[in-house]
Amino acid sequence: MERSAIRNGRVIPEREAVVPVTLRAVQYSFSIYEALRVLHGQVVHLEDHLNRLRASAAAIGLVHPFTDKLIGDSIAALIKADSISDATMRILVVGGDEPLFFITYQDLLSYPDSYYSDGISCISFKGERYLPEAKTSNLLMQYIALEEARKADAFEALLEDREGYLLEGTRSNLYAIKGDVVHTAADDRVLSGITRISVLRAAKELGLSVSHEPIARKDILSYDSIFISATSMGAMPVNAIDGIALGRSRWDDISRICSLVRKWELE
Amino acid sequence: MERSAIRNGRVIPEREAVVPVTLRAVQYSFSIYEALRVLHGQVVHLEDHLNRLRASAAAIGLVHPFTDKLIGDSIAALIKADSISDATMRILVVGGDEPLFFITYQDLLSYPDSYYSDGISCISFKGERYLPEAKTSNLLMQYIALEEARKADAFEALLEDREGYLLEGTRSNLYAIKGDVVHTAADDRVLSGITRISVLRAAKELGLSVSHEPIARKDILSYDSIFISATSMGAMPVNAIDGIALGRSRWDDISRICSLVRKWELE
Repeated sequence: MERSAIRNGRVIPEREAVVPVTLRAVQYSFSIYEALRVLHGQVVHLEDHLNRLRASAAAIGLVHPFTDKLIGDSIAALIKADSISDATMRILVVGGDEPLFFITYQDLLSYPDSYYSDGISCISFKGERYLPEAKTSNLLMQYIALEEARKADAFEALLEDREGYLLEGTRSNLYAIKGDVVHTAADDRVLSGITRISVLRAAKELGLSVSHEPIARKDILSYDSIFISATSMGAMPVNAIDGIALGRSRWDDISRICSLVRKWELE
Repeated sequence: MERSAIRNGRVIPEREAVVPVTLRAVQYSFSIYEALRVLHGQVVHLEDHLNRLRASAAAIGLVHPFTDKLIGDSIAALIKADSISDATMRILVVGGDEPLFFITYQDLLSYPDSYYSDGISCISFKGERYLPEAKTSNLLMQYIALEEARKADAFEALLEDREGYLLEGTRSNLYAIKGDVVHTAADDRVLSGITRISVLRAAKELGLSVSHEPIARKDILSYDSIFISATSMGAMPVNAIDGIALGRSRWDDISRICSLVRKWELE
């Protein structure tokens, strides 16, 4: 059965979810997006995603007429049209003189249990995002960084700024635990991850405090354990960066954080 | 009459020149392009554009099966299909597992004579391009910078790097003349403009030498005259940057450079 999609609020066949290559906003990647989870037919953290979509639009000056209500109703219409239970859904808003809005979906992104029990490996990649607070289609650097990671059999590339700090992954936020403190980059340096909010809330619930002192590439061995988070990943321990094996003493804490994050998604 | 376009070597109606929003390469702006001029049914500097398209592909690791011959033949087929005389044409190659290639066109971009006789105004915009040597769709910064320019009634935004140097415009290269020397940024810091090659050749023909010492924002008044170049513009004098009126003593030279550049296009 062919999937459905949404275009400007209307249900369409997925094959019609296309954009003209003659459109200036397409040629300039002047668009924003959100990726969200649908579990048991319910959208997870919808309001947070709509808030961030609005923040992304404001950050790049993308004006569009699509209200939160229209987007929310469209998601509901798509879930109903295809009787969706579990899925990863993508909202895309293309700017310009005649803005477009799409919702498409795919099978729920999930990862093998071993990624959580054995951790995943990362590489570092020198690069800084333009407008880190906006979630836009301007993702060429992330694409290239992730290709580099794959060539090195790694799961994620961590972006290293010019001062040598690892700020975030290409599609994840980054954390390091030392003693009673979870370190993560300052809010204005990285994408404001929806799952990041839950991770920091979970960390506090476990008695940890949060520091916004960033994680230097050269200091990775000084931390007890390092992990990443994303909507599709929850919280995932990192076993190595650039082939350097990392500490595992706090993996139980990371697992507890992940469980809390996933529990709150169903509330 | 609806225009034609090319998709993977075949002539199609322009309305079918679309890309699926579900394609990862589209979502990540993993694509490269060229904009070229067709004059009297002839493509200007085709080989240079094909060389640069290949360089862009190499710079971002975009592998595709579309040969120079296929692209050249496709352009010829499009010119024939729509009996095109003068046009601005756009080649787009989208990467990924199943690369796509499009050619579309629009009316020949040209500017009023007054832009050449009175010059155009620019703003400076703090920002550095990722992989400046590659011409990719990752143009969000350029889009935003150009919006800023338009709000200030300026024609172009000049990107200023963190050291305070004006390297290039959002869609143009930048030059400053002082005495017998034309200053422009080093080749590896900016897009390798096709028209830039002609501009520097023309400058030499007029007895000027070329310096790759970049142009500092704070020194703009120390130059005799400043100008920009692009495929669609030729060479265009800049009358002001950020509202600061610039010298005009070398506008005759700029006009001569422009004439030579345009003459060579027809050879």
